[in-house]
Amino acid sequence: MPIKIAIFGGSGYGGSELLRILLQHPHAEIAFVTANEHAGKAVSDVHKNLLGVTELRFIKAPENVEGLSDIDCAFFALPHGQAMDIAPKLPAQVKVIDLSGDFRLSDANVFAQHYGREHTAIDAQSQFVYGLTETNREVIRSATHIANPGCFATATLLGLAPLVANNLLSCRVIVDAKTGSSGSGAKAAPNTHHPQRSTSFYAYKPFTHQHVPEIEQELKSIGEWNNELVFMTHSLPVARGIFASIYCELKKEIEEIEARAMFTDFYRESFFVRLVEGSPDINWVKTTNFCDIGFATRGRQLVVFTAIDNLVKGAAGQAVQNLNLMFGLDEKTGLMLLGTNP
Amino acid sequence: MPIKIAIFGGSGYGGSELLRILLQHPHAEIAFVTANEHAGKAVSDVHKNLLGVTELRFIKAPENVEGLSDIDCAFFALPHGQAMDIAPKLPAQVKVIDLSGDFRLSDANVFAQHYGREHTAIDAQSQFVYGLTETNREVIRSATHIANPGCFATATLLGLAPLVANNLLSCRVIVDAKTGSSGSGAKAAPNTHHPQRSTSFYAYKPFTHQHVPEIEQELKSIGEWNNELVFMTHSLPVARGIFASIYCELKKEIEEIEARAMFTDFYRESFFVRLVEGSPDINWVKTTNFCDIGFATRGRQLVVFTAIDNLVKGAAGQAVQNLNLMFGLDEKTGLMLLGTNP
Amino acid sequence: MPIKIAIFGGSGYGGSELLRILLQHPHAEIAFVTANEHAGKAVSDVHKNLLGVTELRFIKAPENVEGLSDIDCAFFALPHGQAMDIAPKLPAQVKVIDLSGDFRLSDANVFAQHYGREHTAIDAQSQFVYGLTETNREVIRSATHIANPGCFATATLLGLAPLVANNLLSCRVIVDAKTGSSGSGAKAAPNTHHPQRSTSFYAYKPFTHQHVPEIEQELKSIGEWNNELVFMTHSLPVARGIFASIYCELKKEIEEIEARAMFTDFYRESFFVRLVEGSPDINWVKTTNFCDIGFATRGRQLVVFTAIDNLVKGAAGQAVQNLNLMFGLDEKTGLMLLGTNP
Amino acid sequence: MPIKIAIFGGSGYGGSELLRILLQHPHAEIAFVTANEHAGKAVSDVHKNLLGVTELRFIKAPENVEGLSDIDCAFFALPHGQAMDIAPKLPAQVKVIDLSGDFRLSDANVFAQHYGREHTAIDAQSQFVYGLTETNREVIRSATHIANPGCFATATLLGLAPLVANNLLSCRVIVDAKTGSSGSGAKAAPNTHHPQRSTSFYAYKPFTHQHVPEIEQELKSIGEWNNELVFMTHSLPVARGIFASIYCELKKEIEEIEARAMFTDFYRESFFVRLVEGSPDINWVKTTNFCDIGFATRGRQLVVFTAIDNLVKGAAGQAVQNLNLMFGLDEKTGLMLLGTNP
Repeated sequence: MPIKIAIFGGSGYGGSELLRILLQHPHAEIAFVTANEHAGKAVSDVHKNLLGVTELRFIKAPENVEGLSDIDCAFFALPHGQAMDIAPKLPAQVKVIDLSGDFRLSDANVFAQHYGREHTAIDAQSQFVYGLTETNREVIRSATHIANPGCFATATLLGLAPLVANNLLSCRVIVDAKTGSSGSGAKAAPNTHHPQRSTSFYAYKPFTHQHVPEIEQELKSIGEWNNELVFMTHSLPVARGIFASIYCELKKEIEEIEARAMFTDFYRESFFVRLVEGSPDINWVKTTNFCDIGFATRGRQLVVFTAIDNLVKGAAGQAVQNLNLMFGLDEKTGLMLLGTNP
Repeated sequence: MPIKIAIFGGSGYGGSELLRILLQHPHAEIAFVTANEHAGKAVSDVHKNLLGVTELRFIKAPENVEGLSDIDCAFFALPHGQAMDIAPKLPAQVKVIDLSGDFRLSDANVFAQHYGREHTAIDAQSQFVYGLTETNREVIRSATHIANPGCFATATLLGLAPLVANNLLSCRVIVDAKTGSSGSGAKAAPNTHHPQRSTSFYAYKPFTHQHVPEIEQELKSIGEWNNELVFMTHSLPVARGIFASIYCELKKEIEEIEARAMFTDFYRESFFVRLVEGSPDINWVKTTNFCDIGFATRGRQLVVFTAIDNLVKGAAGQAVQNLNLMFGLDEKTGLMLLGTNP
Repeated sequence: MPIKIAIFGGSGYGGSELLRILLQHPHAEIAFVTANEHAGKAVSDVHKNLLGVTELRFIKAPENVEGLSDIDCAFFALPHGQAMDIAPKLPAQVKVIDLSGDFRLSDANVFAQHYGREHTAIDAQSQFVYGLTETNREVIRSATHIANPGCFATATLLGLAPLVANNLLSCRVIVDAKTGSSGSGAKAAPNTHHPQRSTSFYAYKPFTHQHVPEIEQELKSIGEWNNELVFMTHSLPVARGIFASIYCELKKEIEEIEARAMFTDFYRESFFVRLVEGSPDINWVKTTNFCDIGFATRGRQLVVFTAIDNLVKGAAGQAVQNLNLMFGLDEKTGLMLLGTNP
Repeated sequence: MPIKIAIFGGSGYGGSELLRILLQHPHAEIAFVTANEHAGKAVSDVHKNLLGVTELRFIKAPENVEGLSDIDCAFFALPHGQAMDIAPKLPAQVKVIDLSGDFRLSDANVFAQHYGREHTAIDAQSQFVYGLTETNREVIRSATHIANPGCFATATLLGLAPLVANNLLSCRVIVDAKTGSSGSGAKAAPNTHHPQRSTSFYAYKPFTHQHVPEIEQELKSIGEWNNELVFMTHSLPVARGIFASIYCELKKEIEEIEARAMFTDFYRESFFVRLVEGSPDINWVKTTNFCDIGFATRGRQLVVFTAIDNLVKGAAGQAVQNLNLMFGLDEKTGLMLLGTNP
């Protein structure tokens, strides 16, 4: 029996990657995919990569979602602020995986501050498990609602989790994060205008990126976290990938080999975390669900480098990883998306 | 006495390049530069490359252009369809250089067909000289109104002019032209959305590009032109540059050395046309006013390759070249913009 | 029983893509992969995208290939001139798929002229079937040796085959072809030096590209071909993809709808050929085995646009498509490589 | 009387930019330019951007440099380790500007450790003034020998100098620096191979970049510097530009407006330092001699962002800025290289 899946918001890049993955997932069946402004169009008219691969058409989001009793799991890949209106109305047996920021933060005030809108379903938020698979694997297995992590949050948390779990961090932590242009979504905008973006590199949202509170909230659930977090996002002139350089000062000196051993141990069950020699490179993870991690050390200074594909491990891939766990499947199912060289 | 210059439409890429060039032109003084939606803003707020270089601010286009008697020359770098409303109202002594397509075509019907609007000042059109400097140099010297060529038209005409002048072409001519993304202008749009454009190459406007009629009109003024023109435009994943591959069948066999000699002769006075060994490369002309031309031959087949910067030789640079001629200056004045390696 | 596969030449981009595809092919088992200069290294040290996915190590090419009796199929992804020394020595039951140009041309003189070396195994050449799957499907099914087409040849032939088969072409045909930088292979070279290549577009090997003779040889086997072929290759500032603009003059006028119908008919059995509205775009075929084809028409002028991934449909993907046919499998097996948006 | 200039090492990117600038410098005359492997070739055969602009040809480096008494100033744009063999032999009246790392470090052991070779002319080093124009302007005016700063060092020092001069830094300073591919020089290499580099971002030389000691040496000359410097270099998939994100913890809280005022004051005489709103962007400084600086603050955390063109302000432009000062000219002479939008 396939898992019957609804995708709310299928025309953006998150939806695009959900479709790419779920169309080849051996246990998934896409019941419908919504895209209000493209309703009626073939999915392959929008995602032309899928021409010949699917006959699916976009539909308008159903008005009466309470009646969707034949759906097993609903993915939300809508802009922030929309899932909170729909998800709570779904029948109880429908599992939910939300790729937006709507249900990541437990504090309504923090949400309002970072997302610029009031939360209209904060009571429902407590049902949601934060879907960073590698740190929350067991609780995800029995979860019914997943708040899928932000892309920057994923890259940052996977680099910090072992250090926080081992209570090694002293002093402030600095995260210098860089993202490709697909992080801005599928709609054309001045900051993704090709003539300029292709020769640009710049910082944005200094200190104020909306992923900061989910990072800090999750770090506190992993271990002792009382450090100052300096989090800075930058724009890369490339389509896909996030690279985070995470600057830590530890409570004691550390050799690279020790750092590696600690991470190896922490991620023993985590197929999608790969520890690499030297620096990772976004080139080696693009279009895949891998998070590559490397290290540099000097005395008490440890720099952790992480690289992910922002749309896969940072969004749709991790969402499907969580789907797999929630439905009792191997977490790798449908996610053996091999990268390419070049 | 400097030449007093007005720029109508200074916030787009044509305006941007006019500003870059004219700010350093030894005989030009920019009286004002308009940009209705940025009126009041510093020019360097929009063109941040110019920060520290100019204190100019954008103004709204003056309502009463009839009164602009202290201006010597007005450049129009507005979207198609706007110069035709303003330019005819300027005082008689104001010279005009229009970078848009408004005054290039002598036939109002052809204009309407290719630009999707009626021409409202077709009578004024006859005042305009087509500003392809290399073929119309003498008439430009005494012109008062210039219709500056389109970027594709420039790259195509410079490759074909010597062949048409020498009446060598038989059979249809095929122009496979490719442009960088800045050709689409400064406004963000789906076709210049970085995540997709940076890995794209595609054809557009097959057979129907609006530069076709100005190419054919000008070829007829250069010599005998009765050939079929197959003109195809493509989009390159790079910001700047046009490359045209021009496939000709000649009335007789030709060696590369003969082609080169013919072009050398035709462009003897044309500093900005450079004949190169092998293929030109948009890399070597970017940000400059040069048009690089190369050849390949086999029997009666001659392929002419031309490369220009679409915004300089294809727009603002050629416009200033024409300004120089109209005001009795060396055509190179202010245009020794050296390219870079890399 | 899996198909036991040897890969000769696994460190280049052709080998890289063969590995990516064959590691997930449900009926393939890679017995060994050679790379003389990387012998002993993990495959994932060179193709870091494959880290965690395979434990394979490169070996030196076996000295005694005559003894490889446990291999079912050998792929050659070596530089031109090397497969001809090895392939003929393999045991008779080993099927061969050569991605290089060694066995594509039946005329030793033509080979010598285009590849700059003598052919040392021209007798063996007659065993080889030209592996353009869509035109040679039936003969490939029973073939033992495949000369896999060149990337430019694939893009060109798929655009021309229906027209030649229907004997529609009059006059010369012009192919303006453009390739991404991965077409130059995995070794760094001046023409792929990033600082320059990233802002370059230029023509190369005018009239003399080594894919020309295989195109003409194959066209003659498809139908009546007596036309002059003007074939021009250009370099794109992007990693992957080939786009060909193919300019045809037909014996009669044609509407786009007729062209489309003819191609639809010709490619009825060809899953990997997709006919698109408007222009294809390399963006939509990257990393896939698809060839997207579009049209523009005017009178007797027909322009066919084709887009492929040079390393997949233009090399490793088509090679596996042929493997599937030779071993009685569905040609799509292991090749449902979905592209991505973006 | 023009300044007679010799350029040792004119075929690399440093030489390329020196030529571009000096060919248009109103007081410079290039006496000769060397490039041993291109001796005899036209400069414009190598730097094809300069075709039509100069008739200069490369020569072999003169054997008897002691006799170069008609030269006023020698630039060295050679690989590290070569200037130290030649510069000390020049006649005393020849001023020297070395773009390599040979004469930046006063400690021979530190040099040997970071450059992997012994210093053969450490006695001559004391003649050299470190050519960071903005901090050493007065001493440069009377200098005869300039060690021109490294590109990363320039971007870092200009961001830190006002803070060190005001003795505001507490705790470690983290510099997350990113460079375009032209920083690797004009020779093709695996790390600049376009198919991979165009989709890459990675860290390299962690903690060990050779610019670290010159940064620390210079900071000590500017003020109190006892902080730990964590310096990390990364590779950007773009040709030109350096962006540094400099993370500082101050001894007291600071508002952005105060930071700005302090920098404004410090750089009051420095035309080429531009303080921008928000983040700088390498796009706005490319091909120019500007260093754009922006800020973000939170409590005692100050992040300084700097952006330069690595080949201009980070190499050839700053070298000419120093030339101007040494010869009593306005430091802007020949350096009004306006950037472009886009």
